[in-house]
Amino acid sequence: MTNASASTATSMPKALPPPEIQKRLDQLLSDIQSAAAQQIGYPVNQDFDYSPLVPFLDYSINNVGDPFYPSNFWGNTHEIEREVIDIFAGLMRIAPEDAWGYVTSGGTEGNMYGLYLARELFPNAMFYFSEETHYSVLKNVRVLNARHIMIRRQENGEIDYDDLEAMIRVNRDLPAVIMANVGTTMRGAVDDIGRIRDILRDQAVTSYYIHADAALSGMILPFVSNPQPYGFDAGIDSVSVSGHKLIGAPLPCGVVLTKRPYVERVGRAIEYVGVEDTTLSGSRNALAPLMIWYAFAQHGHEGFRNIVAGMLDTAEYAVGQFNERGIPAWRHRNSATVVFPRPRREVFHKWQMAPEGEIAHIITMPHVSREIIDELVADCAG
Amino acid sequence: MTNASASTATSMPKALPPPEIQKRLDQLLSDIQSAAAQQIGYPVNQDFDYSPLVPFLDYSINNVGDPFYPSNFWGNTHEIEREVIDIFAGLMRIAPEDAWGYVTSGGTEGNMYGLYLARELFPNAMFYFSEETHYSVLKNVRVLNARHIMIRRQENGEIDYDDLEAMIRVNRDLPAVIMANVGTTMRGAVDDIGRIRDILRDQAVTSYYIHADAALSGMILPFVSNPQPYGFDAGIDSVSVSGHKLIGAPLPCGVVLTKRPYVERVGRAIEYVGVEDTTLSGSRNALAPLMIWYAFAQHGHEGFRNIVAGMLDTAEYAVGQFNERGIPAWRHRNSATVVFPRPRREVFHKWQMAPEGEIAHIITMPHVSREIIDELVADCAG
Repeated sequence: MTNASASTATSMPKALPPPEIQKRLDQLLSDIQSAAAQQIGYPVNQDFDYSPLVPFLDYSINNVGDPFYPSNFWGNTHEIEREVIDIFAGLMRIAPEDAWGYVTSGGTEGNMYGLYLARELFPNAMFYFSEETHYSVLKNVRVLNARHIMIRRQENGEIDYDDLEAMIRVNRDLPAVIMANVGTTMRGAVDDIGRIRDILRDQAVTSYYIHADAALSGMILPFVSNPQPYGFDAGIDSVSVSGHKLIGAPLPCGVVLTKRPYVERVGRAIEYVGVEDTTLSGSRNALAPLMIWYAFAQHGHEGFRNIVAGMLDTAEYAVGQFNERGIPAWRHRNSATVVFPRPRREVFHKWQMAPEGEIAHIITMPHVSREIIDELVADCAG
Repeated sequence: MTNASASTATSMPKALPPPEIQKRLDQLLSDIQSAAAQQIGYPVNQDFDYSPLVPFLDYSINNVGDPFYPSNFWGNTHEIEREVIDIFAGLMRIAPEDAWGYVTSGGTEGNMYGLYLARELFPNAMFYFSEETHYSVLKNVRVLNARHIMIRRQENGEIDYDDLEAMIRVNRDLPAVIMANVGTTMRGAVDDIGRIRDILRDQAVTSYYIHADAALSGMILPFVSNPQPYGFDAGIDSVSVSGHKLIGAPLPCGVVLTKRPYVERVGRAIEYVGVEDTTLSGSRNALAPLMIWYAFAQHGHEGFRNIVAGMLDTAEYAVGQFNERGIPAWRHRNSATVVFPRPRREVFHKWQMAPEGEIAHIITMPHVSREIIDELVADCAG
């Protein structure tokens, strides 16, 4: 067992499942394959290949605990996880030595971690986020038992800065925690972090914390030439980026990143009551960091730059094709989210789109070809 | 793409990683293999084979949302997940139609869910749990911002019922949430749920909620002939069981189970504020339910009964061997956790044991053979 290598492990003979079980698995896989082909409404990159990681499926691996501290559980990928955090520190524009983070089980855990940290740093803070924010944030805030005000959105999906200012003004006695969207789920809108900070300064609120939900755009903006401000250089205090969205993965995962001193301050408090680990989960998935790491090893930054450029090209193409047919589709700058009027039921069902009120969207992930766009536009126009 | 079957998918040619990446993967896998062989201090079953599930790694699958409601994201394993919940309803002694649950990212999320539900049902409750409780519960309670009292433990690891009664007595004006351990991490102790309910009755506290952390023993007690009370029939309101522990898996996972009406009550409240899903995570791992389901398809209940019997036999053997050498090892009834005095540093390091104060433990998972026990006992006696 101890001397086998990755390549020999894959060739080890395995027991076959009973026929009825294999039949069930075949059917399920075939359903999933059909679903994948028709799926243009969700921001998931389907173009990945993690087959070199298959041998790791034979082991009970676990990244329990802080990836930056030694673990008693040796079967971990903490070293790989630290390299992933370094990569994301670069993307999110913070010096690696100032950053702390870990690979999460998805965007929700990343947002939860940022907001939890904010509440620990400012226990009596008021939390603000726009109504365009992903519903899981409301759930997070509810779990955290934090006071919060939902701010109106503009029609384009950005937070309504006037409403935000008005609400901060009447709560100037409280620290402010702002959950900023860096690419909203529905409209791909990026809240203007500079403007949010201006509001806080104008209202003389000096105790504040900005968490960015950059689930999808956190992997787009670092790879375009003229991004909206999104990183730690723009003034964010923490950020959650998904791994299974633009990078692509068979399981949800993500990265949460924050400033090391924050975690140390909260970490000390936790240690006092006898808890030594700093992550939200106990046992943590050790395959997820390996997948994210492997994707970067495969593509490199240049590869992701090309993937993003291709997605934005297709998005622009889609807007053009819709508009040519008289359908008022639009998208934000640097966004692969194309918004258009909600089509007939059969159309949004066929393409697995999640409509919201009067609108629908597609996200031009790499598998969404121009042929698919043409077919969709014809469906919508027809 | 749509017509491939599970068996052809595995044989599709894949791109090879660059040599330096493959080298890194080989080294990591070899480290993990070495670690696995020497690992007797953690309750993870290493004897699993999920190779028939490998084809699913090629797809972006996601169990986002409530497994009992239809999902807009078709690439899911919700049907399999519901079958897993049914299996666990049987194990935890609740009628499937009365149960609700989902497959979690591990024990922490399951405990968090149970405690979150408890807090939503009883917002001003006092939370009680013993100092023997896994540290993640303290973190959960902290995240939930819930008032809590840590109760002393008895020397055997069970909660100190006198201390619990005293603390409940001084807080009779508050609803009580009890986090009961069904197999503690360190000593495998099972809190006596009947006795806890007696205390609540004696103190006339009628608004209460009992969550059971049955991470490991939730897969032991259903398979022994004379279990300590552990299930819904004993009076628990929710339970978290790990999937990667006794069942075994390459990624942390678990099952949380509760009573359907609780979730419906809390679910309604959530719907009011615009959130429709009932799980804690947003995107959820769709492979984990498939692994748990497949393990039951492979082994059946009879298989798990044999696995558990073998583990308990080995535990009994270990206690005997230790005692023969004059080392005062012991274990609880129906427990594979063998407790003994903390050995020298080299010994507990060699076997990846997590000592606590003056004690250490091993857990006789299936890969822990009598030869390993003999070697360990010799190391400890030497």
